[in-house]
Amino acid sequence: MTEQNSRGAWRDEQGRLHIDPHRLEQNLLTLGEIGRDPVTGGVNRTAFSPAEMEARQWFVNRLEEAGCTVRLDAIGNIIGRLEGRNPAAAPIVIGSHLDSVPQGGRFDGALGVMIGLEIVHCLRDLGTVLDHPLEIVSFSDEEGGLLGSRGWIGTVTDEDLEQIYSGRPLHEALRELGLDPGQVDEARREPGEIAAYLEIHIEQGRVLEREGLQVGIVEGIVALDEYEIIVRGTANHAGTTRLADRDDPMAAAARMMAAVREEVVAQGGDLVATIGVVGVEPGAPNVIPSEVRFTIDIRDPSRLVLERAVANLQRTFTTFAAEEGVTVEWKTLHAIPAAPADPVVMTALREAVESYAYPWRIMASGAGHDAQSVADIAPMGMLFAPSVGGLSHTPAEFTRTVDAACCADVLLGALMLLDERLR
Amino acid sequence: MTEQNSRGAWRDEQGRLHIDPHRLEQNLLTLGEIGRDPVTGGVNRTAFSPAEMEARQWFVNRLEEAGCTVRLDAIGNIIGRLEGRNPAAAPIVIGSHLDSVPQGGRFDGALGVMIGLEIVHCLRDLGTVLDHPLEIVSFSDEEGGLLGSRGWIGTVTDEDLEQIYSGRPLHEALRELGLDPGQVDEARREPGEIAAYLEIHIEQGRVLEREGLQVGIVEGIVALDEYEIIVRGTANHAGTTRLADRDDPMAAAARMMAAVREEVVAQGGDLVATIGVVGVEPGAPNVIPSEVRFTIDIRDPSRLVLERAVANLQRTFTTFAAEEGVTVEWKTLHAIPAAPADPVVMTALREAVESYAYPWRIMASGAGHDAQSVADIAPMGMLFAPSVGGLSHTPAEFTRTVDAACCADVLLGALMLLDERLR
Repeated sequence: MTEQNSRGAWRDEQGRLHIDPHRLEQNLLTLGEIGRDPVTGGVNRTAFSPAEMEARQWFVNRLEEAGCTVRLDAIGNIIGRLEGRNPAAAPIVIGSHLDSVPQGGRFDGALGVMIGLEIVHCLRDLGTVLDHPLEIVSFSDEEGGLLGSRGWIGTVTDEDLEQIYSGRPLHEALRELGLDPGQVDEARREPGEIAAYLEIHIEQGRVLEREGLQVGIVEGIVALDEYEIIVRGTANHAGTTRLADRDDPMAAAARMMAAVREEVVAQGGDLVATIGVVGVEPGAPNVIPSEVRFTIDIRDPSRLVLERAVANLQRTFTTFAAEEGVTVEWKTLHAIPAAPADPVVMTALREAVESYAYPWRIMASGAGHDAQSVADIAPMGMLFAPSVGGLSHTPAEFTRTVDAACCADVLLGALMLLDERLR
Repeated sequence: MTEQNSRGAWRDEQGRLHIDPHRLEQNLLTLGEIGRDPVTGGVNRTAFSPAEMEARQWFVNRLEEAGCTVRLDAIGNIIGRLEGRNPAAAPIVIGSHLDSVPQGGRFDGALGVMIGLEIVHCLRDLGTVLDHPLEIVSFSDEEGGLLGSRGWIGTVTDEDLEQIYSGRPLHEALRELGLDPGQVDEARREPGEIAAYLEIHIEQGRVLEREGLQVGIVEGIVALDEYEIIVRGTANHAGTTRLADRDDPMAAAARMMAAVREEVVAQGGDLVATIGVVGVEPGAPNVIPSEVRFTIDIRDPSRLVLERAVANLQRTFTTFAAEEGVTVEWKTLHAIPAAPADPVVMTALREAVESYAYPWRIMASGAGHDAQSVADIAPMGMLFAPSVGGLSHTPAEFTRTVDAACCADVLLGALMLLDERLR
């Protein structure tokens, strides 16, 4: 498909709609040049950086070319709107983000936004006007913590406004966009204001690739807890302190950290847990530590499963601490609820993918996405496109155009179904 | 004993010699004022610091008062000498160190040196002249790595000479003492030059205290290996990377670190192992690490036992690494052989302690001491005095005068035996 020239969206013999893979690929490539590091090939388009500001302007121009009216909301989300036949209807929204991590790739976020743009083109190519208005959204600063989509659910804080972006606080960056940082609450969208929210994102994992699938239908974004575990004992001489005389927090912490993996294996399913940070005080090879701290990032589509695993670990850690003569403290850094996809939206996505007969599966999203915030106020559905090698947040991040086009077809098909079904 | 006034050394009804606990305690208290932090009570007398330089001068004066001739050797060790009846005989040496760690205590090192001084006083009190010359030594910079005693065995390096002490390199500090840093090799003592070496040190552990003992006869200083273990895997997303897709070095490292304790328990005996440093890269809670490094400090009186434990751990770590899809590398940071005490010296110490009927035991030294270097070139024997609470390297470090005096009595008794027995 990628070799042929643009020919616009088309309807096949079975009446199924197809996006234009060439146009999608071209837009992804053009966008991928903005903030591209010529040495590494990485995309440096962190939120509100000069490159991201350039990408914003480029995207606004593309939306307007495609026939959208474009506005910025109070938190700087770019919203391109295509009116429907029924101006009183709540819009169907397709979103993702233009910002990247430092030295990121061309697909994370960008794919979802460029597919949104492609869908607008397709509707025009096909001469179709939806019943609902359609909004294509690029959310502000997804990578830094879902800022733009949190704007929609009213959870942006004064601390967020002081966060530094490319050398200046957020409130200054918002002013550069012509916005009033005192009015960020106006970005809020109430339940009922959005008929449905759809997002395509790269998987950032290897499940689809390993199973040879082209489309993942996300059943929900996982619940995520992040803890810091603090194990306190008594610093002592590594040579003269016999085993029986040690209150060694490292001996306890090693057993605890090993138990985290064992608990994940025991629970099975989609549960994952990660220990990404370990700190040891005082931190000398010949001194028994006084304190060990480590983090646990634990995720599962079901908060129940997650909480069962955490409860088991708490019991285990308490036992180990008692056995080693140390104390253990759990500090909650984050506790994010699961965000389930909406059954009506999922059904539409499922019927669409089955009509195309693209190989697909249902899966959970282990990563957070803007869809997780929006799920608080609107029926949400999400598709994953396969990531080659499961890679993301690296210049090597790649999704094949043929796979991206399959996902976009399914989104287009589901959009038609939802436009009919939603009131 | 501590309440009575100085009355000098004395001989009891059974003919056993006793040191003067009051004089010993007074000297320890006076020395403990040099470098004392008035707020914490800690002793700050790191090698070649102004406070340690002051302590050196104070000690030289005390040795001369006691009738010794005093010299500095080429690495700055202070040597007070009392001639014996046989000027051709090799000296018996009693040594330890005046330097402390930052915020250390009044006993680590100081006790051994002050007991050496006390022994000189005792011989004069008793009107006894030994057959052998007696040398009382304060070794330079024990705490930084046995510098002074390594000078005796010729292992001081150019790197040592560049080491910074209180703002200037060692070679400059040596010049301040009137020494030629180009001549450090002249500090060397050849095998046969020393008839026997004796050292009293605080235990720095809780074995003697827990068993209600006053004297520990050291059978040897443990073999010590220090390793850095480097476990390398693949950094990845903590949410999107399923368990099966992870090459998580932390999962492997946790099991390895837990196995260290298990191996110590399995071996039993005197083996101890400590994990004092852990580093995780890249070190974010939501990123599966690419690399985990940790240290193992492992000690046993028998190098054979130590090496058996290390071999077991190497096998275990290799298995765990293979199971977790990561690699493991062992880097040797230190490998210090065991330093056994000399049987003739140990017998003399044992006969002495039995004659006094002080409660005692034989034990290994888990910590390194100057005795360990000197053991390379001379018959070595060492006594441990009980540490209250096992504490050392803290202002709270404490050894009761009554216990210190018992150890000093035993040293004095053994010195008499060795003076007779050694040629």
